[in-house]
Formats: sequence, structure tokens, C-alpha cells
Amino acid sequence: MLNKIKFLTAGESHGKALMGILDGIPSNLPISEEYIRKQLSRRQMGFGRGGRMKIESDYAEIVSGVRYGKTLGSPIGLIIDNKDWRNWKEIMETEASSSPVKKITLPRPGHADLAGLIKYDFNDIRCVIERSSARETAMRVAIGSICRKFIEELGIEVASRVVQIHDVIDRNKLPEISKINDLADKSPTRCVSKSDTEKMVERIKEARKSGDSVGGVFEIIIYNLPYGLGSYTQWDKKMQSKLAETIMSINAIKGVEFGEGFKESKKFGSDVHDEIGWDGSFYTRNTNRAGGLEGGMTNAQPLIIRAAMKPLSSLSRPLKSVDINNKKSELAHKERSDTCAVPAASIIAENIACIVIADSILEKFGGDSIQQVITHYEKTSKY
Amino acid sequence: MLNKIKFLTAGESHGKALMGILDGIPSNLPISEEYIRKQLSRRQMGFGRGGRMKIESDYAEIVSGVRYGKTLGSPIGLIIDNKDWRNWKEIMETEASSSPVKKITLPRPGHADLAGLIKYDFNDIRCVIERSSARETAMRVAIGSICRKFIEELGIEVASRVVQIHDVIDRNKLPEISKINDLADKSPTRCVSKSDTEKMVERIKEARKSGDSVGGVFEIIIYNLPYGLGSYTQWDKKMQSKLAETIMSINAIKGVEFGEGFKESKKFGSDVHDEIGWDGSFYTRNTNRAGGLEGGMTNAQPLIIRAAMKPLSSLSRPLKSVDINNKKSELAHKERSDTCAVPAASIIAENIACIVIADSILEKFGGDSIQQVITHYEKTSKY
Amino acid sequence: MLNKIKFLTAGESHGKALMGILDGIPSNLPISEEYIRKQLSRRQMGFGRGGRMKIESDYAEIVSGVRYGKTLGSPIGLIIDNKDWRNWKEIMETEASSSPVKKITLPRPGHADLAGLIKYDFNDIRCVIERSSARETAMRVAIGSICRKFIEELGIEVASRVVQIHDVIDRNKLPEISKINDLADKSPTRCVSKSDTEKMVERIKEARKSGDSVGGVFEIIIYNLPYGLGSYTQWDKKMQSKLAETIMSINAIKGVEFGEGFKESKKFGSDVHDEIGWDGSFYTRNTNRAGGLEGGMTNAQPLIIRAAMKPLSSLSRPLKSVDINNKKSELAHKERSDTCAVPAASIIAENIACIVIADSILEKFGGDSIQQVITHYEKTSKY
Amino acid sequence: MLNKIKFLTAGESHGKALMGILDGIPSNLPISEEYIRKQLSRRQMGFGRGGRMKIESDYAEIVSGVRYGKTLGSPIGLIIDNKDWRNWKEIMETEASSSPVKKITLPRPGHADLAGLIKYDFNDIRCVIERSSARETAMRVAIGSICRKFIEELGIEVASRVVQIHDVIDRNKLPEISKINDLADKSPTRCVSKSDTEKMVERIKEARKSGDSVGGVFEIIIYNLPYGLGSYTQWDKKMQSKLAETIMSINAIKGVEFGEGFKESKKFGSDVHDEIGWDGSFYTRNTNRAGGLEGGMTNAQPLIIRAAMKPLSSLSRPLKSVDINNKKSELAHKERSDTCAVPAASIIAENIACIVIADSILEKFGGDSIQQVITHYEKTSKY
Repeated sequence: MLNKIKFLTAGESHGKALMGILDGIPSNLPISEEYIRKQLSRRQMGFGRGGRMKIESDYAEIVSGVRYGKTLGSPIGLIIDNKDWRNWKEIMETEASSSPVKKITLPRPGHADLAGLIKYDFNDIRCVIERSSARETAMRVAIGSICRKFIEELGIEVASRVVQIHDVIDRNKLPEISKINDLADKSPTRCVSKSDTEKMVERIKEARKSGDSVGGVFEIIIYNLPYGLGSYTQWDKKMQSKLAETIMSINAIKGVEFGEGFKESKKFGSDVHDEIGWDGSFYTRNTNRAGGLEGGMTNAQPLIIRAAMKPLSSLSRPLKSVDINNKKSELAHKERSDTCAVPAASIIAENIACIVIADSILEKFGGDSIQQVITHYEKTSKY
Repeated sequence: MLNKIKFLTAGESHGKALMGILDGIPSNLPISEEYIRKQLSRRQMGFGRGGRMKIESDYAEIVSGVRYGKTLGSPIGLIIDNKDWRNWKEIMETEASSSPVKKITLPRPGHADLAGLIKYDFNDIRCVIERSSARETAMRVAIGSICRKFIEELGIEVASRVVQIHDVIDRNKLPEISKINDLADKSPTRCVSKSDTEKMVERIKEARKSGDSVGGVFEIIIYNLPYGLGSYTQWDKKMQSKLAETIMSINAIKGVEFGEGFKESKKFGSDVHDEIGWDGSFYTRNTNRAGGLEGGMTNAQPLIIRAAMKPLSSLSRPLKSVDINNKKSELAHKERSDTCAVPAASIIAENIACIVIADSILEKFGGDSIQQVITHYEKTSKY
Repeated sequence: MLNKIKFLTAGESHGKALMGILDGIPSNLPISEEYIRKQLSRRQMGFGRGGRMKIESDYAEIVSGVRYGKTLGSPIGLIIDNKDWRNWKEIMETEASSSPVKKITLPRPGHADLAGLIKYDFNDIRCVIERSSARETAMRVAIGSICRKFIEELGIEVASRVVQIHDVIDRNKLPEISKINDLADKSPTRCVSKSDTEKMVERIKEARKSGDSVGGVFEIIIYNLPYGLGSYTQWDKKMQSKLAETIMSINAIKGVEFGEGFKESKKFGSDVHDEIGWDGSFYTRNTNRAGGLEGGMTNAQPLIIRAAMKPLSSLSRPLKSVDINNKKSELAHKERSDTCAVPAASIIAENIACIVIADSILEKFGGDSIQQVITHYEKTSKY
Repeated sequence: MLNKIKFLTAGESHGKALMGILDGIPSNLPISEEYIRKQLSRRQMGFGRGGRMKIESDYAEIVSGVRYGKTLGSPIGLIIDNKDWRNWKEIMETEASSSPVKKITLPRPGHADLAGLIKYDFNDIRCVIERSSARETAMRVAIGSICRKFIEELGIEVASRVVQIHDVIDRNKLPEISKINDLADKSPTRCVSKSDTEKMVERIKEARKSGDSVGGVFEIIIYNLPYGLGSYTQWDKKMQSKLAETIMSINAIKGVEFGEGFKESKKFGSDVHDEIGWDGSFYTRNTNRAGGLEGGMTNAQPLIIRAAMKPLSSLSRPLKSVDINNKKSELAHKERSDTCAVPAASIIAENIACIVIADSILEKFGGDSIQQVITHYEKTSKY
């Protein structure tokens, strides 16, 4: 749950545009459309994407909340136009229409289709799939990137990498933290190991050939954090709760873990905790098995999150379904799709995790302008 | 994030009492202290608990919001008295004191101790550990149990079981869903397999002997759910987000997954989705790999959540730490502790998951009295 | 505080556009841009407005959340383009600029100018006045009008009228409730009395002539409400709290009252309460001094709200101020302005009050589609 | 809407106890039960109260969140025991009972009785009146008093006075601000004018004699505030919205206004705004007609709120009502009652206004401990 930052996104996948409003960012933060574009562009990378990534090169226009390259403290309005709108105008018309187009009536297993249809009393699955599509995450990346810019002003950095695609697992040691994104962004699967990247690409090709899809696991690392973001004092103030809530909201994510996560559950207590030292000026740790969180709070170590993404539900070789009108068994509707979106998901997670960090920073340090935040931060943060 | 139900807990581990206020439960729901006591008692079971479980047999008194055994629609106030308060009075005195007791100055690795001390400018770690203790979850179980009673009125049931303690994994098939809790509650580790239970007990004994601790994995199953709780329309409305936020807030939980979770990330798409059928009266599924959630919504299949618990951080053979005053390296403070709390965590998770389900039910169906909720539910729910 | 409906607006007064996102409206509600336009157009009416009302004829484009004239249950995105943007491009540029325009340095008394400047560390008051302007309320009317359409589906209606401009008070009896808006919309001051309208127009002309401004009082009437919206069970659930929060957020509103309000405080208790009768089929009242609210809940009588608007702070004959750079006393900055905006404020209040009512309806009755809401409402509402 | 501070109260008027949980207060704030008691005791003063005020001398016990006289940053739990519980045990039993007591079936006009009965499907009005009673405000005063202590640490003070009882209006000039509470607390009606106090007492006596009740108007003054609490950037961030929401939630309040409020609506713009000066070191105002708020923000002038209280609805000479069972017309149920509670309401408002101010301070300045808040405040606040 966010307390200081509020945001809403709107927009159907093939509608006129995606819209986003981000409320709560301090004034005088330098931000540009170009900065946002870079994160949007990273989201579009990755081997295994379908046709749409080629049509669109996402661009978020800043409509409000920014003047002369600096935030105004007022809500930031963003629009990502749908460049393909012309071709979808008839299908996604907002005004009443006498000649609506052909309805989709074969729900796709694994998707929101059937539950959405029943929940909202629709007779056309198009009404569900347009909003349940992962297209919406483009706007969340744009919003997250502004929060990222904000925490960068305090020296906080975020990186990510793919550690598994299907059964190919990168078991190499984590490279130097400041180099992760550079290495990952050069890999078509955002894996920092060259040899594993090749195997991953191979697996994606196989899946594509057979009309199938693959998932995987990625890792987020947030570093240069101070002590004491989050709190143990009430259930919804714990950092792992806020981060899990946020990461789990990315389409197709089925699991999330912190530090050594599930692996840790197989060890003895004496092997999983990070002993405390003193280097003459501050507390130190030789290990970071906790993944940067103790008691629901940051402990100035890198915050490590891993998330599991299921193989995408849109298959070019569809599964069995039932027509919602005549109840006959048929193959599910086919919608344009990717074979693998794990690299994209890692970028989405990287940026939306910044929303949680920015919210926690503002919660702890306050400040209406970037100058005030920095003044408070310099006076009372410890790391 | 909860929308219709609000709750707050208060209370230090060795303070006078735990308090809880639960707001948003419809009127006329039958509830008794005895019903709540049963869930509290289940939380205290399990092999591997330390001394405190014997001192206390938790009992939550209903202070308000209930009259003649039925809820009033007004906030429900609960108190769990600390039966050991007499022995802690001096240490946990609320009023200013001229002779405060000895301070704790050796933060325990893995705990909130150091981050909490820094965050709140304390000079005594006692001020942190009293609230960061898992004792608080007793009140959350009491609160969750009232939500549980509410959803039971609609036929919705919740069960749980431990599937792993340390490296002992129960790989047996899930037993018939309605029998899980009966079987699990009879096992000292809440594992439904007798042979695995024995191995788990053995592992806990080993850990205890060496002053160590063990963690594990448990599973929550929520069944008889209707279609369409949660939504795909905004990030914070997805069921997996709300449930992950809640489950991750239980002390020592380091990971959470839905359906096949991390395992699913190693499969092909054609192997992980649940094909849709029709049985003449409603939609059917032969599999439930999605764990009851598609597109962030319930799909009338059992909702399956698994969570990983780290081995507890309080060790009777403590790790290295640093005295916060003289900065010398010493062994961490020792506080009374359990060897294994995974069975307890499964009960906590079971009950607090009910808060999320109750909130989602009220969100979708409304209703100020239990009669109104049932009337709405009968008219428009589908399962 | 809203629970089921969330909305955010964004946009500077002379920026590219106003944006709004409305989240939480059930699916299948019929809505059109034309319906919204009517409310926007009512907001632009009224004697005493300045030049801008002639430039713009506000039009909100539905960008998302609606298909073929019906809501999708997904967030509704709205844009009101600034038709005058071309002339403001240089002044309101979002990207960094090497040649920013002349700064405003003379804060206007009564406005957000000085407090905003200090709060956000600006050196140009333009950064404040663009968002603090009442222009933003155009988007809130658009958002409110969709909520209005929703509650109309349940038969609930909203009307308003101006009862005072400066010292001219309409003391006539309230006309038949269903005729109020027709009568008010025909009056240039939205006063249902012809003779008082004339006097009000006169007073506005006087003020304009002397470069001054006038305020007044308007009344909102919401009728055909059921029993039991809102609640007495927790402070922030009371209808008067939610409505006062909302109405007080309209620019220049300085007071709000319910029923007989301040007047009631001068009467004896036996003269202010509404005795309860029975007409053979349901409870009746002969009076409605409470203004439709008892114990924080609707009581099926018309809900009556009155609000006081101060005379606008933008004067063409400006007050004394201080230059923020050289601290010399000078006359405040002059920004284009209206002489009287009370009629507009009544329309704004009418529509945003609908947000609160819609939220309370969804809170009490639930429902994801308009069909479900109506089914629940027919079964359990009483009025 | 509160962002940083959360609180919930629970408890029926004649139940075992009132409970309250206050979450979000920084650590290390000195607080004692005696400090809270003083505010509770001020709430019980005032001429015109009924019998209950003599039975109880309210005392809030601090159950949690405080150690050795200082806050812990954890939620503060409070309990006000019902000293009369013994006599109400049978009537307010929480457990199921075979012999429930006589039901109340005659709803009182002006109260929550009828709407509450219908809303919650009760058959005994006792189930409504116990929570809708103003008794709950005792706990809100206790909670508010802790927030008051917090803002006092920053030098912010709050005062109040009664300016009208029935038709007796104190038209004298506001006395020196720091003396208001001393003067008001000495008057049996909390009116700072001796002669008006006498007239007010007279009016209350008259009402009591005829079994009637009277209301009135009180004023809250908050001073030593910095610039820039609240914001104009989003509707729910405006100080007047938050304060109106809070003040309107006090039982029997029917109107609220800021600065000159309704009176201001009858003046010309040039007469209502506060010109800006410079005294060599900071901005000055010679007048404070705006009541300390411009553009939804504090402007370092005293914040002035006035609220209208209706005459209480519980009359010893009851009004006509209808029996909910046989629908026959009868006189309404009689419940013990006060003749006038305006002085009490002023104390309630004084203290709960502090919750809003404390929340806004934490929103703007952040800080987890009182030391951190003060450090931030000293660095970046301006007044």
C-alpha cells in the first residue's frame, strides 16, 4: 500500500492511448520525456517478442506537472499514444455504434478472459482482453521511471537481470552490482552470462517453433538504500509486503521472493542470518542473505527481489476452450503474442519497484521540493 | 490493499495486552469468543515451540461490536491479555520511570533490532523487539478468524498444511481438500503425511539440540470461491497482489507463490494453463495449475498459495554482533525463542488470508447486514 | 474519504490539457461525450464570467474505459484539450528551456500564490497559479457527471440553485424539487426567483464596474435516495464528513452546512427534528430540517447542502503585495478573472457531490456491472 | 483524508469499554495518561450536561505504544473503561443470550435510530444507539490529545471558545490568542465574555426546564503554524477539506466555516483578502479574514474554524415517532441526555483538529522519531 504517492493508469491495449497520472512527486525534480523514453525502450527489448514491439516505439508525452524540465509538485499527466489506433478505431470505438464488430467468444485459458466476462457481464471477450493485456505496463514503466529519477537524486540505484528462462538457469555469481544493467541490457535475454544467454535464446526459438511459450525468473537489485525504510510496527508497513504487492501485479508473475527466499527455507538458522560488524565508522555485514530486509525494513544492504514469470498464456497453438454462446468445445481465441517476455518483465519490475522506494523515502523523510527532501535526507538518513 | 475492511493491531509482546480493532464486518454475523479461541489455539500448536506457548493459552475477549452473539456492524474491539504481565511490569512500564531496567545493546542479526534502533532513535533494543516480535500475529489471527466466520456463511472454506520443514519435503498428492485441516491439525508439524511428519520432527529435534532453528514451506487452500473476486483493471486490485501483501507481512516469510509458482517458470506454456470445459451447467477445469487465479481474479477453482519461512532469527546459540554503545564485537542478545514456527505460520496465514477474501467479497457484493450480503451473493455470484 | 471510487485529475490551467482518470465505475453503464458535455456547458454558464469562458467551450474526450457507448469496468480516461495552448506554449513548455519567460513575482492576496511559492521552493508564481486555478474543476465536473449518470440509473437525481449573491438573498420557498434545475439553468445567476435574479445581476455589474468581485451561497439537493448511505460506526463514514470534504475542495468555498445548518443552532431541539410517521407502507416525515441526514446516514429525504463562496481573489483592481525578489511593496499580479463564479460553483458542487453518492451506493450495494448493482439495489434498498 | 496517521475507535456507549488505536506517531514523544486525562476532563465540563458526566470521570489507560513515558513509534493502544458496566452487563452482553432484555422500538427523530435500524437489519434500536452515541468522542479526544502533544513540540497551539448558545451571541472582539483557553475553560459555557456566559446559562436553564435542548456555535483557533501545510494540487489535499471532514464527524454538527465563512459571501472581494507586507525579515498580514488558509494551505496566520451544533436530539419531552413493530404512532424512546453540549463539542473539535494538523506536519516534514521531525522542521519550515 502506497501512502504518499498515488497513481492511476487508464487505457485499453488497442484504444486511443494509455494515460497515467502520478501524484505526490516533489517539485523541482529534473525530468524529461527522453529520460522516460529510455526506460520505455528498455521494456521493448528482449528476444522472443511478437510483432507489436516493432510497430510501436513507445513514447510518453508529459502533458502536465512539469515546466521547463522540472516537476511542479502538481500531478504529472502522461500519455502514450497508440500509433496503430487508425486500424483499431472501428473495434474500439468509444461512442455507441450501430454496427459493432465481430465478438470474441472463445476464452483463452490462463487469461482474464472467462473470469472477466463473468465478473463484468460482457458478451464479448474483447471487452476484457483490452485492459487485462500487459500493454498497460508501458504506462507503469513511464510512471515508475519518474520515481526512479527521484530516488537517483538521493544516490539510490536499481538494476535487474534475468536468471532463468525455462530450464536454463544462470548459476554464476552476481557480477559487480554497478555493472549489472550494462551487461544485462546488452544480452537479448537480459542475462549477464553470455553462455547462458545463448542457451536461453535457443530455448525461446524452440518454443516459438512449436507455437509455445516460455517463462522464467528475474532478479531486481536496489542499492545505496539507507537504514529504516518500511517498518515492523503495522502489517502493511513492511517493505516486503509493499514490494510483493507491487511486483505481483505485473502480468504473468506467479511468485516473488526476497534474499535467498525459498532456498533459505531449507537451511539452518545459523546459516542464513547476516552477522553484524563495525568498520570504525558504521555497521557492516559480510553477507546479505536477508536480501537487504530485516524486520520489514531496509538495512542498507542491497535489496534483492526475485520473481517467477509463467510462460505466457497466449499461444499460437491454442488450448481447448468453450464458446460462451453455444457452449461447444473449440480452440481458444488467438491474439497476437510474444513467445517470451521475461526480459521485459524485469524492466517493468525494476521501474515499478522505484514507486515503492520513492513512496517509502517520502514517508520517512518528507519534503515538498527536491531541495527539502535532500536537506532532510542529508540530516537524518544513515547508511 | 484493503478497501472495505480496516483493521489495526496494537500491543508489545510483553506489554499489558494486545489490542485489535476490526472495522467493516456486516451486522448480524454470529460470532463468539469460543470460535476465535479455536483459531488462536491452533496457532499455538506445533512441534518446536519454546516456553511461552506453555505459559499462555491465548484468549481474545470481545470488548465491542458484538451483542448477544451477533455483530453490530460497528467496529469489533478485541483484547488478548498478557497473562505474564506481572513479571514484565517493570520492564514495560508505560509511565515515566526513574529507574529503568538494563538496556539491550546487542542487536540480533536477521531481526528488526538494528534497523529499528536506527530508524526510531532508540538506545535500548527492547523498544524494537517488543513490537517486531511475532507475538502480534496472535491478534491478527483473532481478527482473521472473524473474517473467516463471515466467509463461511457463504460456504467459503480455508485450509492449510505444511509441505516442507528444512529439507524434508512432503511430495505426496494433495489429499481430498475437505480433509486437509483435519489431517494437518493432528500432525505435530501440520504435515498431512505421517512418514514425512516423523522426519520433520526429527529435523526439528536436531536443530534444537544444536541451538539452531529451521524453517519451511506451507500451503494455503481457499475453496468454494465464486468467479470474479479481484480485478485486472488496476494494479492494486489483483488478488495475488492483495494476498502477497498480506502473507508477506507474517514475520519470517521470505517468499510467496501462487499455483505452481516458481516451478511453472520452467515449463512450456502448453503445459501450464487449465483448459476450459462445460459440464452441461457451468464451466469446468480438469487441472488447476493456475492456483485458482486468472488475470488477477478468482476463477472458482481452489486458490493455492505457498509461502517460504526462513529459519527463525532468534538462536539459543547466537551469532556475532556489535554492542551499540562501545562498538565491540560480541554475541547477539538471546531472547526466548522457538526452534520451528512453520506450523504456527500456516495457521496465521490461513486466517489472515480470510481478511483479504472477506474484503473482496464485500467489495464485489456489498451489503450492510449478513442477510443483505447473502441476498446479493445468491443473486449475482457464479461458481 | 472515498472507498470504492478513485479519481485523479492532472493539468495546469494553460497547459496542453486537463487529464482525469476515474476508477471504480461498474461496467455496462451507458455514457457518451455528449452527456458529459452538457454538464461542462452548464459549468460555463452564469453572468459575471470573464473572457476565458468565451474562448473555450469545454469538451471532454473519452480516451478509455468505454466501448460502444458503455463503460468497461476499467478506468475511464478523460482529456479536455486546452484550445488556447498555441498561445501558451512558450510559457508552459514542459521540456527544459534556455529562454524561459518573464516570471511572476507579486503574489495575489487570497490566492495560493505566496504559500505555494514557499511550500514548493519556486521563484516564479506562475508555477503555483497554473494548478491552483479553478480551471481544474472542469475535469472534476466531467468525472462527476459520469457518477451522476450512474446514480441516475437508480433513480437518484441532483439539483442546485443559487440562493445568494453578495447581499441579495432569495428567501422564497423552495420550488417543486424536480423543477429546480430547469428554473435555475434559465437564470443568468442560477437563482430560481426572477426578481432576485435581476437584483443579483445588478450587484455583479456594480462589482465589475469597480474592478471588484462578489461571492454568494448555493444549495445542492439530492433526492430519491434510499435509507442508510453512510454510517455512524466510524468517524470517516458519516455522509456529512464525506460531502463536506468534497464540497470544501472547490476553489473559494469557505463554508458548508447541511439542512438548516447554522440557522438551526439558534433554535430549540423541539423545533428542529423531523417527527416520524407511517403512511401504511413506509415511514414518513412532514418536515426535513435535518436535510436528509440523521446519524451520518441518508434518511430517504432530500439531502440539502449549502455552501458559501467568497468573492474571487483575482481583482482587476489589485490589492497590495510584496515583490518576492526585492521585497518592495507593489500591487499584486493581475490574472484574467471573473467577477462572480457562484453559478459555476453550484454546477461543480452538483456534479462532484455525485461522486460521493456513487461511492456510497457502491459501498452499500456492491456490484461489478450496472445490472448487478441494480439487482442488489432492487433487493435490499429501502426508501 | 489522513495519509500518515491512522486511527480507529471501537466501543459501545454502555459496553465494557471504549478502545482506540492510534498509528503513525513518531517515537520518543513524551506522553502520559495525566496529559490525556486533562483533555478528557475538559470535555466533561460545561453547563447543561446530564447525569452521566457525574458518574464517569473519564480516564484513558495507555495499553501499548509507550514505554517509560515516551512513544515507541508503534501503535498506541488506549482503553477507557466504562465504570458503569456492571449495571449494563445484561443489556450489552457480547455472548449469545437466552434471555435478551426488552427491545427499544420507538426511533428518536434526529438520531441515527431509524436509518441505522433499516441499514443494519436490526429489530432493537439499542443496537444502533450504543455506537451512534457521542460517547465515542471521548476516545477521539484521547487520540487527538496525543497528536496535540506532538504538535506542541513544534510550538503549535490550539484553542477554542463558544461564540453562541441558542440566540445568545458573543460579539466581542477575540481576546489575545494565548489567553482564550484559560478564559474559556473558566466559563461554564466556554464563552470568554462573562456577560454572555450568564445569558447563555440562562438560556440553557430555560431549555432544561421545558424538557428541551439548545445548540450553538464554537470556534477553533490553531496558531504558530508554518507556511504550506496542505496543498492545492489535488482535491483531497486541501486543508479545509481535511478539517471539514473531521469536524463534521462530531455528533450534531451541521455546519462548518473557515475565516469569515458565510459572512464573507456578502462582501466585496476588495474587503475580504489579506494584503501582503514585509517586516524586514518575513511576509506579514495586517488582517486574517481568510482564517489562515489560502489555496488550501496554511499561510502562517491563525487558522480559524467555526462550527454549528444543532440542539441535541434526545429530548426529555420526546417527539412523535412510530413503533417499528406495530407501526402505531407513539412518543419516541427517552434516553438519558444533556440539555446543551456545545462546550464539550468545542473541546472535541479542538483535539481532533490536532489529528489533521499532526498528519499534515508528518506529510510535509517526515521523520520517524521526534528528534528527526524537529531536525527537519527546523531546517525547512517557514513561518
